[in-house]
Amino acid sequence: MSPFVAELIGTMILIVFGGGVCAGVTLKKSLSQNSGWIVITFGWGFAVMIAAYVVGNYSGAHLNPALTIALAVAGSFPWDQVGTYIAAQMIGAFLGAVVVWLHYLPHWKETEDPGAKLGVFSTGPAIKNTFANLLSEIIGTFVLVFVLLALGAKGMKFADGLKTLIVGFLIVGIGLSLGGTTGYAINPARDLGPRIAHFVLPIAGKGSSNWSYAWIPVVGPIIGGVLAAVVYNLIVQ
Amino acid sequence: MSPFVAELIGTMILIVFGGGVCAGVTLKKSLSQNSGWIVITFGWGFAVMIAAYVVGNYSGAHLNPALTIALAVAGSFPWDQVGTYIAAQMIGAFLGAVVVWLHYLPHWKETEDPGAKLGVFSTGPAIKNTFANLLSEIIGTFVLVFVLLALGAKGMKFADGLKTLIVGFLIVGIGLSLGGTTGYAINPARDLGPRIAHFVLPIAGKGSSNWSYAWIPVVGPIIGGVLAAVVYNLIVQ
Amino acid sequence: MSPFVAELIGTMILIVFGGGVCAGVTLKKSLSQNSGWIVITFGWGFAVMIAAYVVGNYSGAHLNPALTIALAVAGSFPWDQVGTYIAAQMIGAFLGAVVVWLHYLPHWKETEDPGAKLGVFSTGPAIKNTFANLLSEIIGTFVLVFVLLALGAKGMKFADGLKTLIVGFLIVGIGLSLGGTTGYAINPARDLGPRIAHFVLPIAGKGSSNWSYAWIPVVGPIIGGVLAAVVYNLIVQ
Amino acid sequence: MSPFVAELIGTMILIVFGGGVCAGVTLKKSLSQNSGWIVITFGWGFAVMIAAYVVGNYSGAHLNPALTIALAVAGSFPWDQVGTYIAAQMIGAFLGAVVVWLHYLPHWKETEDPGAKLGVFSTGPAIKNTFANLLSEIIGTFVLVFVLLALGAKGMKFADGLKTLIVGFLIVGIGLSLGGTTGYAINPARDLGPRIAHFVLPIAGKGSSNWSYAWIPVVGPIIGGVLAAVVYNLIVQ
Repeated sequence: MSPFVAELIGTMILIVFGGGVCAGVTLKKSLSQNSGWIVITFGWGFAVMIAAYVVGNYSGAHLNPALTIALAVAGSFPWDQVGTYIAAQMIGAFLGAVVVWLHYLPHWKETEDPGAKLGVFSTGPAIKNTFANLLSEIIGTFVLVFVLLALGAKGMKFADGLKTLIVGFLIVGIGLSLGGTTGYAINPARDLGPRIAHFVLPIAGKGSSNWSYAWIPVVGPIIGGVLAAVVYNLIVQ
Repeated sequence: MSPFVAELIGTMILIVFGGGVCAGVTLKKSLSQNSGWIVITFGWGFAVMIAAYVVGNYSGAHLNPALTIALAVAGSFPWDQVGTYIAAQMIGAFLGAVVVWLHYLPHWKETEDPGAKLGVFSTGPAIKNTFANLLSEIIGTFVLVFVLLALGAKGMKFADGLKTLIVGFLIVGIGLSLGGTTGYAINPARDLGPRIAHFVLPIAGKGSSNWSYAWIPVVGPIIGGVLAAVVYNLIVQ
Repeated sequence: MSPFVAELIGTMILIVFGGGVCAGVTLKKSLSQNSGWIVITFGWGFAVMIAAYVVGNYSGAHLNPALTIALAVAGSFPWDQVGTYIAAQMIGAFLGAVVVWLHYLPHWKETEDPGAKLGVFSTGPAIKNTFANLLSEIIGTFVLVFVLLALGAKGMKFADGLKTLIVGFLIVGIGLSLGGTTGYAINPARDLGPRIAHFVLPIAGKGSSNWSYAWIPVVGPIIGGVLAAVVYNLIVQ
Repeated sequence: MSPFVAELIGTMILIVFGGGVCAGVTLKKSLSQNSGWIVITFGWGFAVMIAAYVVGNYSGAHLNPALTIALAVAGSFPWDQVGTYIAAQMIGAFLGAVVVWLHYLPHWKETEDPGAKLGVFSTGPAIKNTFANLLSEIIGTFVLVFVLLALGAKGMKFADGLKTLIVGFLIVGIGLSLGGTTGYAINPARDLGPRIAHFVLPIAGKGSSNWSYAWIPVVGPIIGGVLAAVVYNLIVQ
């Protein structure tokens, strides 16, 4: 499997699970409707964990343009592959959202609230505030990338296969602790790919794709990730 | 322990735990009544994990005819043992359901809703829709088998005993993310064996065993599993 | 640390955590009041896990007379140490319950229901039915001991320290799936030791210690554990 | 990274996650509002786990003055570094609380209750009772330090990277079982650092920082930790 295919499939798996748990908790008549934040956060944590197990050996399982860019800034990923990775991540996220739409097919028309439907695909702020929302995405992604760099440091040793589980629990932790403000996109592909899917798919009773907010979960994570790479290298060297 | 006995005991353990958690959450006066989707999904995840630890060394712990058939299609399991495995899985699932019935014995007559009682044994759709329900079972089982094949790939290394835990969390993840539509049978034995038990056991105040739906959680998982094996081999080679 | 001290301390830790989580969920004004079955079951699972890490190297961390007797029946534990182990387990369980009483000291008089207070110390049936309650405890302990024997089988390999975590998740699983009927004592010391503590401690507004039920979570687990040892040896050899 | 920087960053991460989960569950309009004790306890458990992975190789990841003092009393940490560690922990906890304040910036003025806002930063008792509250913090920290010493004993073996995960689950367990009384500070820096932040930061609509209670989560954990070190050495040698 080429790195392109691996990133595409990995990000697709990420969104099948991550979008899926949002659909299950949000959509009317779902058996898991209203099952709460613990379900959302473990759903996304296991989403990353599973995707990373499947494709980690082929591409390193970035699954996130903010991480790909941050690793390039940190000098541990070649710049000339950044475009390939990001393209794969965007396509994978889009396709994952299509699977979620198909999987929950009869539930869309049962759900009245168009905002709830958009929430299955993309994040939105609990309180709309450009500065604060951007800051939340910067902080969340800073923490993500800083800890990932630390987990990959030379002195770290993990028994075979254990590190990916810990990364999954890191994602659960970020969701539990930092997700309450903007829904922790912390990943441009995770937010933009499904938002495009929401825009183009014939979802029953859908509303706006909220494009005015769409730049925040793209720009915030990239700033946060790059800052984390810079600060990490300053501190650790 | 022969593979036949191992698959029988493993699938029995699977249903004792998996049917048990459904009984606990559903039946009236149970101490765990209405404890929610997080309980259901971790209950099934640990059910698979525990069963796989117990019998993994003896049979590979398929515990699922869709997996057995998919592995045979993929060329990594001999066709002449498929029948033996499926028979053991069906018998084990039936016996596991009998244990659940006995364990929760005084709770059946306390529970009025016959549909709730059937739900302890077998899955049912949140919204009845043959195409969508079948598609959900295909997608859920595709994901299950695809990830299991990836976890078993040559390049994957797991510290002793770790892989089975990860498989348990994979099941939790599938439940959290993809369970809301049809209750994620993703396993013909898990659904049909207990449905037969529901049909033959003298359960207080039971209703229909809903045979008109019974083919979907049999056919859907087999299609999904076989597709996953085919696609996995196309992508990875 | 002698095996006696180890079993005493281990069972004390078990009850500090296990009784503690019941107190937190049950007692009025507790910050964790009404936090549900997922809290109860992970609380008990981590209780066993933590106790087993602390004393496993010194005594094998039985922490349960039903397991000690079952291992003796199975021929893998010397009969002449059974009395010592059980005495230590009973004393430890009693002392653990004293710590729980002290830890939640101002909460007892805030809680009106005497039955709720007893429930912090000892189990009780969801539906009183001698046959069914005894059967539930037999089934729960059968599963516990059968799986523990399988996890300790010769062919099983676990990376250092991993097995105890899996045992913790096994306890979570038993609670999730089989706890709804009698509160899964599955351990005579876990139930009887704290019941004696409830009887002798000056708990504000306490009621009956429900001695008429007390034999079931003693006899049921012993029967279940011995049956598991016998059946396991029949199947595996 | 020097031990000073490591303890500072580690404790900062601890509070970003730990304060963050409290903010998410408590503050009005948060997407994770009212998501319950299971969210709080896993949030703090993963907070400790993540912080310990990041800085464990540089400072041993004490992250807690009570642990630093207890290890010095036990003879396994040099007294002349105790001041440095505690200073770093206090500064890190203060800075972590500043990040939480910024991350949830628009949510403070939406939340009326000043006590709820303080609860994001520092612990408070469910029932005010000096003796009982102090005792709860002593017991909680005794258990924490006693188990940590046992996990670090010579005979204990953990596969690479596994022990830190278990420590995370230990924290979850302490929260589930012993957190209901005083909110389990069990760490003077975790409580006092953020309390100072609460005092100095311009938090919208904040109230008292409850200084009359502030000594209990400082003194209690130190007593509990030292007692645990003394008792552990008595028992194990």
